Amino acid sequence: MKLYDLDVSGNCYKVRLFAALIDIDLELRPVDFAAGEQKDDGILALNPFGELPILIDGDMTLRNSHAMLVYIARKHEREDWYPLNARDEAAVVQWLMVAENELARGPNDARLHDKFDYDLDVEEARSKSNRILSIMNRHLGDSEWLALDRPTIADIACFPYIALGHEGGVFIDVYPNVSAWVERIKSLPGLIAMPGI
Amino acid sequence: MKLYDLDVSGNCYKVRLFAALIDIDLELRPVDFAAGEQKDDGILALNPFGELPILIDGDMTLRNSHAMLVYIARKHEREDWYPLNARDEAAVVQWLMVAENELARGPNDARLHDKFDYDLDVEEARSKSNRILSIMNRHLGDSEWLALDRPTIADIACFPYIALGHEGGVFIDVYPNVSAWVERIKSLPGLIAMPGI
Repeated sequence: MKLYDLDVSGNCYKVRLFAALIDIDLELRPVDFAAGEQKDDGILALNPFGELPILIDGDMTLRNSHAMLVYIARKHEREDWYPLNARDEAAVVQWLMVAENELARGPNDARLHDKFDYDLDVEEARSKSNRILSIMNRHLGDSEWLALDRPTIADIACFPYIALGHEGGVFIDVYPNVSAWVERIKSLPGLIAMPGI
Repeated sequence: MKLYDLDVSGNCYKVRLFAALIDIDLELRPVDFAAGEQKDDGILALNPFGELPILIDGDMTLRNSHAMLVYIARKHEREDWYPLNARDEAAVVQWLMVAENELARGPNDARLHDKFDYDLDVEEARSKSNRILSIMNRHLGDSEWLALDRPTIADIACFPYIALGHEGGVFIDVYPNVSAWVERIKSLPGLIAMPGI
């Protein structure tokens, strides 16, 4: 599998992190983001959204990091990370959706503004960040992991932009259960780092 | 299965629609949105996000419509609508993510502004709508359905807020392939309507 990759992207990091945790090799193909390579015709032909990461496996192309987590878990039959029974699978999926929606509109957007000069309403993004972090802090008071009684791809999907929140003025020290969960993830065997985490 | 439901919600409609298409009974429990019942303690105990729909099945509670589509498909072993092999499953998931992100920030937000007086940047929402509809229009020039060679829960997830776009000033008649796809969905046996569709 080849991953079109950017070292400072939390979405790229989700895929690198999950592959590292389950000991799967990824061929990394760095993209020159500073030069705008993700908007070049070659990349746009792979992903019309003009975004990273992009995963290639044979003649299959994926352009969404959460779909990549699903793909890698299923391909390598890691039901421990992504279960097959309806109830547990749906429990994981609803946290993948939080990563795709509330966390994208919250700490991810705030960081895009502060670190990458995106033109967006950073106060709105920080307000949304605090709303979802408050909900997650209550949830994580009752459970160690987001979806099940063990780490799943739901935790991998939600972790990076929360741990990177400080780069967008979103600080988790006021959310003790979220902070403890971040530390639990950082303690997983095989964890790899990225700039800012 | 009991669905806490709102008739004008596109997210609630996704669940009602899929259940109707595969002929599954849902017990509907209408929520009095005009009175703000979704923010009452009873509802917040079921869903701390204070949003609809909410699905109850025995002692299981789900609070995200796309997780509900996954749950219902798996519970009723409808691999035709949500496949089990890694490649096809991931292809569906990446369109569920478009429904959760780009379509939520696009036509859904524009409609929330116009129809429900939400305080948000409607021009930004319409701009994002046109960006994702342009991408989908090109994609649907090559394929009849979003993810596979047949309708899947990806189509169910993306359909409502595109078909409701006119309620937020987002019009699909300039996207002929999207318009044709909307008509294909409307022709599916068992399709049910909602206000605006």
